[in-house]
Amino acid sequence: MIHYSEEDIDKLNKVFRINLINSCSGYKSANLIGTKSKSGIANVAVFSSIVHLGSNPPLLGFFLRPSEIFPRNTYTNIKETGIYTINSIYKEIINDAHHTSAKYDKSISEFSMTDINEEYIDDTSPPFVENSPIKIEMKFEEEIKIKANKCKLIVGKIVNLHIEKKLLEKDGFLSLYKGKIPTISGCDGYSLPEIYDRKGYQKTKD
Amino acid sequence: MIHYSEEDIDKLNKVFRINLINSCSGYKSANLIGTKSKSGIANVAVFSSIVHLGSNPPLLGFFLRPSEIFPRNTYTNIKETGIYTINSIYKEIINDAHHTSAKYDKSISEFSMTDINEEYIDDTSPPFVENSPIKIEMKFEEEIKIKANKCKLIVGKIVNLHIEKKLLEKDGFLSLYKGKIPTISGCDGYSLPEIYDRKGYQKTKD
Repeated sequence: MIHYSEEDIDKLNKVFRINLINSCSGYKSANLIGTKSKSGIANVAVFSSIVHLGSNPPLLGFFLRPSEIFPRNTYTNIKETGIYTINSIYKEIINDAHHTSAKYDKSISEFSMTDINEEYIDDTSPPFVENSPIKIEMKFEEEIKIKANKCKLIVGKIVNLHIEKKLLEKDGFLSLYKGKIPTISGCDGYSLPEIYDRKGYQKTKD
Repeated sequence: MIHYSEEDIDKLNKVFRINLINSCSGYKSANLIGTKSKSGIANVAVFSSIVHLGSNPPLLGFFLRPSEIFPRNTYTNIKETGIYTINSIYKEIINDAHHTSAKYDKSISEFSMTDINEEYIDDTSPPFVENSPIKIEMKFEEEIKIKANKCKLIVGKIVNLHIEKKLLEKDGFLSLYKGKIPTISGCDGYSLPEIYDRKGYQKTKD
């Protein structure tokens, strides 16, 4: 085994440390967050930090680094409008989805710089990603600051959930592989899991 | 597409809603948290909520539901001792790792109810999981309450990182598939991603 102490990690080259620490916790979710500014410019950005927080009420969260709060647009738009969408990345748009991590100016919509198309389910909805197998409309609930590194956890409530029919199993479980949804590792590794094995609810053994 | 509004989700059968909301955000990490009580009883429990929070300082977080704070043991042990371990699940122990989600009494160590073996790297360390390809020793930093559902985010700092050599790429990225590390979807779906495609750092296009 290779061993890094706290002091070793401190001394690592910056890019090496980012890659190492970002991949050591395991696989992550792969989504695009869609927002619109008050002035009407749509924004879409890749996030690997979207997490499930609870099912009743149905809450999802994601993390923003201090550098992403200003001048990045997702946060500003959510604070201005209170609404956003979370859309599963799927195989055919992985390259374009990852490209949304490039630092475009606020005046430029990432939809215009990629082949990802925006979709509006009704007049007041924020922009969804066309053909995404799971499209979630979110309402902002709260933001929580992490003292240890000044990151923020953004908490939102699911207000509308749109799912491609073939993903939904009888008991509510979504077979993500049927939508060719990837998982992200580190900053830029994309994998497409192809099968799963469900282990069921566990009872204690004697 | 199937559509669930906020009201539809409220009215769903409990198990269906848990499965649906727990899988809609995408793939999750698959780890075992190891702790020891002040009285010396080791505990190990599966967590799919471990997330990367930042690389400088190197921070990881995980979420606990209100029901997991008491009487579940991971939280109590972390608060008592200030230290814990995060260990990647690997292919050969998936069944046993998932079984640690059964609700054993505090007096029973999950290590004794499964074929997962505990390992101590030095005299003062909390229990690691033997043969885990990524073993992380953590120091508790802070706990943050989410008002919307009373869950807690537990934030910790990496103090020692042990990695199987074959996983480490030249730039610090860890190839999780070389350690046969699974990803979790929903409450009980385990997949083994086999390849990845790295997309690199993205610059803006003209």
